[in-house]
Amino acid sequence: MATIKDIADKLGISPSTVSKGLNGANDISDEMRQLVLDTAVEIGYASKRMRAHRKRKFCILIKDMDYETSDQFAFDIILGFKKAALRRECDVDIIPVDNNLETSEKYDSYVFKNNYDGAFMLGFTLHDEWTKQLHTTIIPTVLFDNHIDDNVHVASVGTDSYEGITCAVNHLVNLGHKKIAFLNGARNSKVSIDRQKAFEDSLLANGIAPDPNLMRYGYFIADCARDHVPTFIENGATAIMCASDLIASGVVNELKRLNIKVPEDISVIGFDDIPIAERLTPSLTTIRQDRQDLGKSAFLLVDGLTNDVTISKILLRAKFIERESTCKVK
Amino acid sequence: MATIKDIADKLGISPSTVSKGLNGANDISDEMRQLVLDTAVEIGYASKRMRAHRKRKFCILIKDMDYETSDQFAFDIILGFKKAALRRECDVDIIPVDNNLETSEKYDSYVFKNNYDGAFMLGFTLHDEWTKQLHTTIIPTVLFDNHIDDNVHVASVGTDSYEGITCAVNHLVNLGHKKIAFLNGARNSKVSIDRQKAFEDSLLANGIAPDPNLMRYGYFIADCARDHVPTFIENGATAIMCASDLIASGVVNELKRLNIKVPEDISVIGFDDIPIAERLTPSLTTIRQDRQDLGKSAFLLVDGLTNDVTISKILLRAKFIERESTCKVK
Repeated sequence: MATIKDIADKLGISPSTVSKGLNGANDISDEMRQLVLDTAVEIGYASKRMRAHRKRKFCILIKDMDYETSDQFAFDIILGFKKAALRRECDVDIIPVDNNLETSEKYDSYVFKNNYDGAFMLGFTLHDEWTKQLHTTIIPTVLFDNHIDDNVHVASVGTDSYEGITCAVNHLVNLGHKKIAFLNGARNSKVSIDRQKAFEDSLLANGIAPDPNLMRYGYFIADCARDHVPTFIENGATAIMCASDLIASGVVNELKRLNIKVPEDISVIGFDDIPIAERLTPSLTTIRQDRQDLGKSAFLLVDGLTNDVTISKILLRAKFIERESTCKVK
Repeated sequence: MATIKDIADKLGISPSTVSKGLNGANDISDEMRQLVLDTAVEIGYASKRMRAHRKRKFCILIKDMDYETSDQFAFDIILGFKKAALRRECDVDIIPVDNNLETSEKYDSYVFKNNYDGAFMLGFTLHDEWTKQLHTTIIPTVLFDNHIDDNVHVASVGTDSYEGITCAVNHLVNLGHKKIAFLNGARNSKVSIDRQKAFEDSLLANGIAPDPNLMRYGYFIADCARDHVPTFIENGATAIMCASDLIASGVVNELKRLNIKVPEDISVIGFDDIPIAERLTPSLTTIRQDRQDLGKSAFLLVDGLTNDVTISKILLRAKFIERESTCKVK
């Protein structure tokens, strides 16, 4: 097992400097502390404190995603993770992450320094600094809705978009819709690419050619509806599928502003089934992601990875929920 | 909670007849016993004995797959499942299944009657009687290498074929191969369809058009090589990828019989990395499935399903293993 001396030898510095670096002392430079931590991670050093039998501890790193109230998307995901962790007597910290933190410290060093056994990353895109570092991390890491191809230490969790989108498209086609638009989420996320493909394949399976004028990438916020709904209307859409309930709520508002009735003139379908879906007027037909189960599965994954089970991916079932925002085409 | 009387009322028979059916008494007909069991499953009846706190028990149903010795494919999968079950203090029975059993009894009734909390099915194809019944089962069931789209009680486990096949094709292309053949497994299995798509996509990503003369479905046995290797040779193949190490061993033997040298004349790649892969002459380049982890993941899944976690799918990492059966094209 690697020791403090190994780190010192590798860096050509004294063991006491290494010790300062590992313990976060103030009398060495930030660069040196970073170098010590990076090297400790690299050679697999574990302190006595870390080796001693202790309660395991995981972190949920969360970025650009709302989670504070039960109405918000990530709330139940975190709840599910915590419940599963509790059953295995593990602690969980919730850490909001922003670009500053990502650029000021390397991902592995951050997790290692804080003695986490592994991490669950929520809301990160493939372009984020820490996501990019996942190709070489040795920290057991679970990524939501994205996937890293070539690193056995990283697993991903998500909902089977294919099944969900297929149900929704079939539902619309059965109601007579042929001009179906799709307002997707952010382009730089694996889940958006998967859903785009699922949408196009489902149309083709129903004998409908995908129309580029009826498909747009947006963002996972309500406001993105304004930019795209008018184009969909101009191109004759009778139904709009959305990559989240938030986007769908924006679409419904935009249609109201344009004096277009939902569902009589245009049917709208969301994704997620967060609590607002049921409370919207009209209530929203949507595709449910079981968010507590997503959290529980994320814990299963990170727990598995720390025990060297090389799971790559867990997908949950999507469930189609029919409400009032869809009806037969006129 | 449903009672014996509920079953009796539903069938219009006496509670004592129901009781005989549930307890396997001999003085009622097989048909009546089957009907009682089916109805018990349907209305969610659980006997006192079943409700009482007891050690949980799962079965591994295995069909057309070798598992008796450590050389054989399913041996380590079962070992992994048992290890994970032991950690959760559950019992595991191994049940070989054949067509007779499948046609003589319904899947749900069989599992229910034997008091199993759930089942892991190994070696079944989509055409098998019990697989077909999985669309409506209420038994927590995990299926290896196949997938049921529309039932939350069924989950699937497998290895990420896409990642494995892509690595193998890239390896061959880097060695200068352009005429790459693919001898796939049985056609009626989801995993074969996935691998076929992965193979064609990987070729296309390397600028090579898939050649129908160089792609064949076979079976997961060595003998199927004879039927297809000559065709591959006639069509100019310089490399043959196989859907299992067993198939690859058949291909190597067939090439020897035809006085064709491996790898000098033809490179060969297997799939699975079972123990024979290393012992073949030449030793076999292959794609490893971690079979113990497959078994552990199957247990995670069935355990999750019994706790109403609606996981649809777990995929494990595939690992490319380079040995002596591949080399630069001449």
